[in-house]
Amino acid sequence: MRVGFIGLGIMGLPMAGHIAAAGHVLFAHSRSGVPPRLLDAGATACASPADVARQADAIILMLPDTPDVEAVLFGTDGVADGLAAGRMVIDMSSISPLATREFAQRIEAAGCAFVDAPVSGGEVGAKSASLTIMAGGTDDGFARAEPLLRLMGRTITHVGPCGAGQTAKVANQIIVALTIEAVAEALVFAARAGADPARVREALMGGFASSRVLEVHGQRMIDRAFEPGFRIGLHQKDLELALSGARQLGVSLPNTASCQSLFNACIAAGGRDWDHSALVRALERLAAHELS
Amino acid sequence: MRVGFIGLGIMGLPMAGHIAAAGHVLFAHSRSGVPPRLLDAGATACASPADVARQADAIILMLPDTPDVEAVLFGTDGVADGLAAGRMVIDMSSISPLATREFAQRIEAAGCAFVDAPVSGGEVGAKSASLTIMAGGTDDGFARAEPLLRLMGRTITHVGPCGAGQTAKVANQIIVALTIEAVAEALVFAARAGADPARVREALMGGFASSRVLEVHGQRMIDRAFEPGFRIGLHQKDLELALSGARQLGVSLPNTASCQSLFNACIAAGGRDWDHSALVRALERLAAHELS
Repeated sequence: MRVGFIGLGIMGLPMAGHIAAAGHVLFAHSRSGVPPRLLDAGATACASPADVARQADAIILMLPDTPDVEAVLFGTDGVADGLAAGRMVIDMSSISPLATREFAQRIEAAGCAFVDAPVSGGEVGAKSASLTIMAGGTDDGFARAEPLLRLMGRTITHVGPCGAGQTAKVANQIIVALTIEAVAEALVFAARAGADPARVREALMGGFASSRVLEVHGQRMIDRAFEPGFRIGLHQKDLELALSGARQLGVSLPNTASCQSLFNACIAAGGRDWDHSALVRALERLAAHELS
Repeated sequence: MRVGFIGLGIMGLPMAGHIAAAGHVLFAHSRSGVPPRLLDAGATACASPADVARQADAIILMLPDTPDVEAVLFGTDGVADGLAAGRMVIDMSSISPLATREFAQRIEAAGCAFVDAPVSGGEVGAKSASLTIMAGGTDDGFARAEPLLRLMGRTITHVGPCGAGQTAKVANQIIVALTIEAVAEALVFAARAGADPARVREALMGGFASSRVLEVHGQRMIDRAFEPGFRIGLHQKDLELALSGARQLGVSLPNTASCQSLFNACIAAGGRDWDHSALVRALERLAAHELS
């Protein structure tokens, strides 16, 4: 198949590599150019998103945020300028679920399929093709996208119509952030009360408090191992998607809002690139803060 | 061994039964009398906590809250009135970690050992002797208590000095409540954004959002299965231990405080006996609330 790939960052580059390695004809574009190793793997560099769209049957996007996707799809020399009916757009970026539904309608109005397919699993998952992929789209659209998604991910779930993939990703990021915050409150309380947080964590594993976050991020908090992992700056962006979505939908997300405040505090302290488990530092600071 | 047991409620009665079944000589007391089936199992009914303490080498408490433990230990005809040096008190109630340290000091001043050993696992765990037990005490005190604890629990962790068991229990209840709240925010957001919460939950299992709570309580939210389980009224009591402890220790627990507000709202709506997963109802209500 002739496959386009737009966005060749930390995630996109290895993902595009898997597409090329599977024997597909790859048309690639990125604002900062196409890296030589992808050209060596057989990719054709394209000058613009429109140029990619003119040559490929399926166009995959892996971009930082909602405005980037909007510009690549509908800006000057954007994907929409090069699309012909029958093509397919697969947006694997993590962006606004509500904007996604609007983008999908515009792409579908051009006679093309749209699938949102954000991922979790990070750089490690992108390199090893073991990403978790949450997809939104029609049954037909998902069926067409799935063989390509299988080249990049291990667990692929068709969650619902267009936008549902992004909604699931936001839900994922809410739960991960709030569970990290929960473990942080519990361990800070335990430490201040004079208990050993490591033994408390151990005592709690296996019961109803057990989670991947208690296991992995709880250990990072105890070890003070705050190299990312997943950066606070990125998680702040994801919670902003949740909070702006909540505003538009009329939903109250009190602990997501409070968790975002703690991420904000970490970033103010220089922690944009700390692992998200370092959120515990904001609680520790609150417990020792002096106003004057 | 001559073992005393004070507090024969939903949890205490089956726990005391395991002690008797193991062949220990049981001296029992409860405000509402000793049930016939425990007397049939060989227990001796005692008129007061002091009476229990006079006859038993180890005295186990399983009571509702901090004031109950204080009254049974140090009130009129309390345990302290009947204690002789060398005895051991094991408090398996879930109460204040800070009050526990004070109680322990007073019991130790009488030449006795004190171990706090709160449990999780509920009525099911009490009946099947599979409780998770978090113990605080000296190494010697824990070593003496452990054979008795093994008759009631499966996972027994010596977390630290006196009070550390209660601290671990509070930490456990913080994490469980806040993880329930996290899953509730994520599923309410997903439902309002037009996705199917059941498919979202499925897509998230196995990733970093996975937890026992997503598995069990997430499913209850989707099934609207809010029979307890663990009652909101009891979890409210446990979060009050966290919040009053936080006040005394100078710790900030923003999401525990917010979660308690949601439990309060459920109880105001008649939900004291709902399962704690029904906290999702408070968020649903917020999303549809009209002031006038």
